[in-house]
Amino acid sequence: MNEIEIVAIGSEILKGNIVNSNSSEISHALLEAGYKVSRHTVLPDETLPLKKGLEEACKRSRIVITTGGLGPTCDDITRQVAAELFHSDFYFNEELAQSLIQRYGSLPISLENQATVPSKAQILRNNVGTAPGSAFHTETNTLILMPGVPKEMLLMLNNEAIPFLQKHFPKKQYTSSRLFFADLGEANIDPHLRELQKQFPHMEFGIYPAQGIVTVQFMIEEMDYEKARIELEIASEYLRSRFPDNHFNSTTGKPEVDIQQLFIDNKWTLSTTESCTGGAVAARITKQPGASKYFLGGIVSYSNDLKTKLLHVSEQTLSTYGAVSSQTVTEMAIGALITTKSDFALAVSGVAGPDGGSEQNPVGNVWLAIAQRKHEPIAWHIQGYGSREMIIERSVNAVLTGLLRILQGKNIQYMKT
Amino acid sequence: MNEIEIVAIGSEILKGNIVNSNSSEISHALLEAGYKVSRHTVLPDETLPLKKGLEEACKRSRIVITTGGLGPTCDDITRQVAAELFHSDFYFNEELAQSLIQRYGSLPISLENQATVPSKAQILRNNVGTAPGSAFHTETNTLILMPGVPKEMLLMLNNEAIPFLQKHFPKKQYTSSRLFFADLGEANIDPHLRELQKQFPHMEFGIYPAQGIVTVQFMIEEMDYEKARIELEIASEYLRSRFPDNHFNSTTGKPEVDIQQLFIDNKWTLSTTESCTGGAVAARITKQPGASKYFLGGIVSYSNDLKTKLLHVSEQTLSTYGAVSSQTVTEMAIGALITTKSDFALAVSGVAGPDGGSEQNPVGNVWLAIAQRKHEPIAWHIQGYGSREMIIERSVNAVLTGLLRILQGKNIQYMKT
Repeated sequence: MNEIEIVAIGSEILKGNIVNSNSSEISHALLEAGYKVSRHTVLPDETLPLKKGLEEACKRSRIVITTGGLGPTCDDITRQVAAELFHSDFYFNEELAQSLIQRYGSLPISLENQATVPSKAQILRNNVGTAPGSAFHTETNTLILMPGVPKEMLLMLNNEAIPFLQKHFPKKQYTSSRLFFADLGEANIDPHLRELQKQFPHMEFGIYPAQGIVTVQFMIEEMDYEKARIELEIASEYLRSRFPDNHFNSTTGKPEVDIQQLFIDNKWTLSTTESCTGGAVAARITKQPGASKYFLGGIVSYSNDLKTKLLHVSEQTLSTYGAVSSQTVTEMAIGALITTKSDFALAVSGVAGPDGGSEQNPVGNVWLAIAQRKHEPIAWHIQGYGSREMIIERSVNAVLTGLLRILQGKNIQYMKT
Repeated sequence: MNEIEIVAIGSEILKGNIVNSNSSEISHALLEAGYKVSRHTVLPDETLPLKKGLEEACKRSRIVITTGGLGPTCDDITRQVAAELFHSDFYFNEELAQSLIQRYGSLPISLENQATVPSKAQILRNNVGTAPGSAFHTETNTLILMPGVPKEMLLMLNNEAIPFLQKHFPKKQYTSSRLFFADLGEANIDPHLRELQKQFPHMEFGIYPAQGIVTVQFMIEEMDYEKARIELEIASEYLRSRFPDNHFNSTTGKPEVDIQQLFIDNKWTLSTTESCTGGAVAARITKQPGASKYFLGGIVSYSNDLKTKLLHVSEQTLSTYGAVSSQTVTEMAIGALITTKSDFALAVSGVAGPDGGSEQNPVGNVWLAIAQRKHEPIAWHIQGYGSREMIIERSVNAVLTGLLRILQGKNIQYMKT
């Protein structure tokens, strides 16, 4: 198997000022294309350690993919260092210069630098920024250089770098598929994966829990694609049938993406009302391009006063059952339906902590509700744990996967008080 | 200088299922404590590559800090691999076992494993999870093992690992300070840093722009602490005085943290109303523990109907000036003030894209407003760029740094139409 290593270049990552999300994005896209990454490395924008680190990486791994350090400023040295490793000189690429002039007007010195590229590398085009990528390829080593700006990098990865790999390394290392479950723990799934492991000893399994959504990944290494797909489908069906109500169909594992598609297809509208999640449900929904086609808006009713005033939650309900209760969250959802005139409304009320918990109503206790025009509202609750941020994310996932599963005809577990 | 390398252990990072935020957190905390990280590595949970990778790291770097792979399940192998590298056997630590029993009840086999630790390592305590950390320390090598669960890791880092380093490596490698600016580009700041570079040739500079907030970092290597602090303060004052209205005082660079402190100290209340940010302003505010002490709530008025109904924006304003305008955003802010009875209200309305832009009102055009009881409201606008997510984040930062700067007596740039 060909080892693939991703090298992110940037002192700002080593100083902890930014998170290395590029390497995760590259890993993910490569795995989808059938290639498995064996290592990530982060190196500083300093010539000596960068050269030493890249040299090491090329010795260790058949394919090295870098991101960062291709800009026009003096601390962008990746291209120079890589060219030295491959004993390549540079030349001024007229065609590249013309395309830069077309996009940016005249050619100042910094663009001229960007059009001067290593002669031993293939150019990888950058249609949204100034930095072209490079791909060095010899009998023993492949080194692909991509920019660090995420948007430029992702476009180049999908349009240039992955096709380059597919040309030179046509054999898929991996065939894989993913399943998504809501409100299940690793411990629920683990025994079933052990069963599957007996049946498919060559299959690899991964369980990735993330605040109420568990992703299960099945992978088969170095096998005929059609045969692998059949085995993956048998394994998937086995697991789906064990947890039919927890499983949800999703293209990405992000319920908001599938919800948006369903709402637009059915011409439904949605609103939200949130207490402990403080706007995070609405923010997650509206992060998707096109959300305005079905999302009308939301009310963050942090204070009880706003719950009464904007959502018509009765003061008696609040004083009898409290803000975190089946009754209040149901009235919030109905209130949102009435106030916004939407077809569906989601409501969340809970204790995100770290303060504000009580014995009866501990930190992490969150009530959720879904109201639908002409239907009985549904309320259920979860017990989140961990930090405030984790409880908020868990609550957002719970209400979105709850809605998606209901739309997919599943029963969500719920508890009425 | 002692090289420090952070090794994150987890196949899920290499598969792109999660982002390696732990390494950034560790880097950041170490830099604050005066230590500079020279490299990040990510290795899989597989014995052979893990052993090879850790061995390499220990050869390369004086101090190696790992995170991940300390759990009780069979794919958690870090402790075993590290013990082999240091030729250490294991022993059952009675005291550790007792503390686990106290917290988790009886001692099943998995906890017993967690109480069995390498004899050549110092134990680093984990007060919130089952996995203890380990610190190996010889004349030539230091290897610190920490768990991968972020919350457990961060507590252990601050309470155990950094004090361990300070004991064995008391000399600070770095003294540093940070400044924060809003609504400035790198290009504005860069010439001034070049000036400072002449005056302080041994000082290192970093500029980290992040959606409307620029962090400038000054660092001095290997210098007497008091002397370094004086030089850093001279450089900081030089830069602050160049951009007095863009600079904001902040403990963390997160304006919401400083806003919360000011609002609680002054017993003020806040509300929000958002269109294009879709709840992201409220979500950012309420992510902070204690936000309920001053934040009353918010209205996500995605549809014009809700702007009229809940915020009393006049239909005439909407039809004459459009939803993305100084007039509408100002009426939204005043409406939120009236509806929620808060002391301050923030409003955002813009085009987050990628669709919905026009020549007059392009993608990224965002209007912001701040209304304060008994004061004239203030409205201004920004031109964001890039993806929808980037424009939303830029807008959240703009309105929060706008509010903070006004509270700190600064003039924010604004444009009335």
